[in-house]
Amino acid sequence: MPKKFAVPRGTSDILPDQAGLWEELESKARLVCQSYGYREIRTPIYEDINLFKRSLGAASDVVNKQLLELAGSKEDEGYALRPEGTAAVVRSYIENSMDGKESLSKLFYIGAMFRGERPQKGRLRQFHQIGAEAIGPNSTSAFLDAELIALAMHLLKEFGVKGLRLKINSLGSREDKAHISLWLRETFAHHKDNLCEECQNRFERNVFRVLDCKNESCRKEVAAVVKDLPLSPESQDYFGQVQASLKGIGVAFEVSAHLVRGLDYYTHTVFEITAEGLGSQDAVGAGGRYNGLVQELGGNEKINYGAIGFALGIERILLASGKAASKPKGLDAFVIAMKEEYQSRGFLILQELRREAIRADMSFTVGSMKSQMGRCDKAGARFALILGEEEIKNNTVSLKDMRTGQQETLAVENLVSSLKDKLCN
Amino acid sequence: MPKKFAVPRGTSDILPDQAGLWEELESKARLVCQSYGYREIRTPIYEDINLFKRSLGAASDVVNKQLLELAGSKEDEGYALRPEGTAAVVRSYIENSMDGKESLSKLFYIGAMFRGERPQKGRLRQFHQIGAEAIGPNSTSAFLDAELIALAMHLLKEFGVKGLRLKINSLGSREDKAHISLWLRETFAHHKDNLCEECQNRFERNVFRVLDCKNESCRKEVAAVVKDLPLSPESQDYFGQVQASLKGIGVAFEVSAHLVRGLDYYTHTVFEITAEGLGSQDAVGAGGRYNGLVQELGGNEKINYGAIGFALGIERILLASGKAASKPKGLDAFVIAMKEEYQSRGFLILQELRREAIRADMSFTVGSMKSQMGRCDKAGARFALILGEEEIKNNTVSLKDMRTGQQETLAVENLVSSLKDKLCN
Repeated sequence: MPKKFAVPRGTSDILPDQAGLWEELESKARLVCQSYGYREIRTPIYEDINLFKRSLGAASDVVNKQLLELAGSKEDEGYALRPEGTAAVVRSYIENSMDGKESLSKLFYIGAMFRGERPQKGRLRQFHQIGAEAIGPNSTSAFLDAELIALAMHLLKEFGVKGLRLKINSLGSREDKAHISLWLRETFAHHKDNLCEECQNRFERNVFRVLDCKNESCRKEVAAVVKDLPLSPESQDYFGQVQASLKGIGVAFEVSAHLVRGLDYYTHTVFEITAEGLGSQDAVGAGGRYNGLVQELGGNEKINYGAIGFALGIERILLASGKAASKPKGLDAFVIAMKEEYQSRGFLILQELRREAIRADMSFTVGSMKSQMGRCDKAGARFALILGEEEIKNNTVSLKDMRTGQQETLAVENLVSSLKDKLCN
Repeated sequence: MPKKFAVPRGTSDILPDQAGLWEELESKARLVCQSYGYREIRTPIYEDINLFKRSLGAASDVVNKQLLELAGSKEDEGYALRPEGTAAVVRSYIENSMDGKESLSKLFYIGAMFRGERPQKGRLRQFHQIGAEAIGPNSTSAFLDAELIALAMHLLKEFGVKGLRLKINSLGSREDKAHISLWLRETFAHHKDNLCEECQNRFERNVFRVLDCKNESCRKEVAAVVKDLPLSPESQDYFGQVQASLKGIGVAFEVSAHLVRGLDYYTHTVFEITAEGLGSQDAVGAGGRYNGLVQELGGNEKINYGAIGFALGIERILLASGKAASKPKGLDAFVIAMKEEYQSRGFLILQELRREAIRADMSFTVGSMKSQMGRCDKAGARFALILGEEEIKNNTVSLKDMRTGQQETLAVENLVSSLKDKLCN
């Protein structure tokens, strides 16, 4: 008995009933992103592993525990499947000297991402994201933050996601972050024992993560102690402008001082969007500003780059929009040859329809009229084209409207134009 | 100085200038495949490595030398990035019991494939294919072979590939293949020394590959010795029907007894399509029938499956069609705020346009009128929307047609409808 194979754990097939939904979502995403002046970029499935170590932080969970590496990787050399899209877009931005070609590069991507999550948690190892990044010399502008956030919200509404909530925060500049980090450690110093084990571990490495710990006792401590993050006046001012810009274009938001993002590279504006109906894992998208990353990855040191981006999770979006499968688009026509010797004629007619972009099919195994009509029905065909003895003799086709049941006889040479007329009505 | 990162060897970024071409090609592919009754399937980027060993043959070059494995793989366990699409589609067909749901499953896919090719040969490690597979119990029909080949040719013509040549051959049934294999070894027994080293190695393992060896001396031997493959009468008859079906729908082809395919699983009809302008690597697509594979991968042993498929190489198609980059679709409108304090109004107008699917942008860094007009021009915008002192005071916008240079003043509340009218004309 040959072994049966299964889809790898944490991945799944997108079957024909679902593929239409994905295609529709991706088409919408492209149109909306393009209407905001963003252009598509596609980077490879895997990258130099050091790109992720450098961008996400070698101490981050993603790099430490979740990278799927290609075999043959050594200690500090090798490739890993991309766990997110920003690092590769920035790598491509630098490698292709985009800063020399345009003052602001507005890029979007749609694609598969990979993390070696423990599958028992029901998390996906291959998942899919739509993301956008705006990168350019001296491009930091509160309007750009607001535009990017508005794009994320626009996309999610376009996809039919309900109960959207936008939370925003500012982590301040790099200098602010260093200062806030110290301040948080001081603030929590006397409460450290009340924090969960993971937060105690994070305390030195990345104390920010204490702020968004899901653990109940940590949340209590955080709520009691942290009302606002101590930003510099400049950072506070910038954050105020972002809020004003969002208000100016009618994008509703809440400020949450406890919102941080898991990746090291964020500075200033960070945001998260949640949707209803997703339980505790209710984030459908998130992002933030990462001005320092371009230089970190090798960009020109003399240039003051601005950069901001987001990623939306396609699986979460589909779940939140409540669409499990799309109704398959039915065929336009189904050809039925009533005898085996009529098949060649039927096939010729079929190909003529397809050449004219009429969606058509036929059964190459000749069954009874009933079984062929069954397949015509199952294919959701609008018209059945029947070839019997009379039709073959007279070079005609019997056209049956599957909605009304009406039947008429057409000359083969008029078939394409007649069908096109009928399909337009 | 931070390290600069580069795209991994043998892979490449698809930059915004090219992404439009890819999107267009994929959209066309979906429409054409759907008009033939094929439905999209998407399988994961990686699969159980044994799936490829079983389907492609553990002795094949692809499995032996070219699989990109994920780290952590052991001798007979692990995952590999997919080197081709058929194995996963068949795996999904079986795993999802598609044979119980429909008598014939017509599936297509578009996606990235991976082979650990030696990059010095200029071959790609990540490349992209469009493929189609038709699988079903008792579905073997010469019409289906012809339909699938016609679909491949239709796609390539639709993509604008010139100088297409279709070569077909039949390898016969499994029994025929075993017989032909013996016959080839006998036939070449006295000429073995004239074959190249690789063919001598292949002699026992896969003597078929001698037939399509590119080496000059091998080609001479093959041309002198092999005129036709000795097929059984049934296989010969089936191949005759395939040829008649192709002729019946006007698909031109040449029969080539020396055409074989590198993968073990092919039986009966095999084909290859070449295009002009590609030099010696001129194949843009290939495929064949693989009736035995469904059972080999765990399908119901009592069912007599028929299966046939092809794959087209997207990179080769783009090369052959001579399209290097697509002209970017220009924006519909570009908003120009002449002073910093007008930016909020400009941003609000901008967002109203985007909400109505009007493709629009603005510069968030206020420069001179000249520099902003320059950016408007570079963005290929159809209209410039100018906000100066007068316009802000009167709640109007000056609309400049970038083609004609004509300018007019519009009330903000009429802007969207006016612009939509103008953009339709």
